[in-house]
Amino acid sequence: MLSEALTRAESLIRTIPDYPEPGVQFRDITPLLADARALRTVIHAMIAPFEGSFDVVAGVEARGFLLAGAVAMEAGVGLVPIRKAGKLPLPAASVTYSLEYGTATIEAHDDIAQGTRVLLVDDVLATGGTLVAAHELVHTLGGMVVGTAVLMELTALGGREVVGDVHTVFTA
Amino acid sequence: MLSEALTRAESLIRTIPDYPEPGVQFRDITPLLADARALRTVIHAMIAPFEGSFDVVAGVEARGFLLAGAVAMEAGVGLVPIRKAGKLPLPAASVTYSLEYGTATIEAHDDIAQGTRVLLVDDVLATGGTLVAAHELVHTLGGMVVGTAVLMELTALGGREVVGDVHTVFTA
Repeated sequence: MLSEALTRAESLIRTIPDYPEPGVQFRDITPLLADARALRTVIHAMIAPFEGSFDVVAGVEARGFLLAGAVAMEAGVGLVPIRKAGKLPLPAASVTYSLEYGTATIEAHDDIAQGTRVLLVDDVLATGGTLVAAHELVHTLGGMVVGTAVLMELTALGGREVVGDVHTVFTA
Repeated sequence: MLSEALTRAESLIRTIPDYPEPGVQFRDITPLLADARALRTVIHAMIAPFEGSFDVVAGVEARGFLLAGAVAMEAGVGLVPIRKAGKLPLPAASVTYSLEYGTATIEAHDDIAQGTRVLLVDDVLATGGTLVAAHELVHTLGGMVVGTAVLMELTALGGREVVGDVHTVFTA
């Protein structure tokens, strides 16, 4: 059961029907982010199970950057952006994965020292493809993924079976 | 003159020659972001002149999201993403501006109430085009830009003359 503060934060997530295509219910977190109290509540909830167990937070472009920046400051750790292909001048690792149509590639710089404990964060767990690729990317760089924290899980898409152990604040 | 902590943070910014094209010195802030101490130092320096004077921080996609997320948590305010065109389901305002070749468009949701005091943040001040457009976007939504904070100013590109009053932590 969610606390009162989390229930209030969840109520700020807006559902937009038939976006980006007919039949899809898009979960828009921007009203939640814009509310100072709700933002703090969800960042605390994302970090709670991992407090003190990670040295760096890695966020996936682009919405994951918003949450990763907040997590980094709150937890007092460093921040590593995982970017879409072609955005970084010196990618040290790169992982290509399948999407519904075609493929996508994510990259990161060599800013994760060997054995660094990494918390992965993103906004939404859908099919899980991006998070699995992000795990592999961190591993390739020599980092150790100690956890994955996601704001909202879309349970019908089965991402949890693919990603494995993942901490989610809200489900839909 | 920079404090010892800021001098250390600045030393973590990596210069990559001839990227993205010959003759350009790219300033890569990812090693700074990955360092917990340096990240805190620069976020405090970005916020310092505006402490207590803003209700919301708006960050420009994509690198601005990393800093805006951190600023939001540190200052205890809400977070509004300013996105590239076509990424938001319900854009409430949209501004198109000129680039060296062609144009770009930025958009935001209606998450800034009338009279909200907004701090704009981005990573780099170059020609200033994006920040001027972001000012206009916030104004269109009914917000009041109380300040602009940027991590690094590339002085040779003259963005300061275009944007007007802007607080920058580092210059190059």
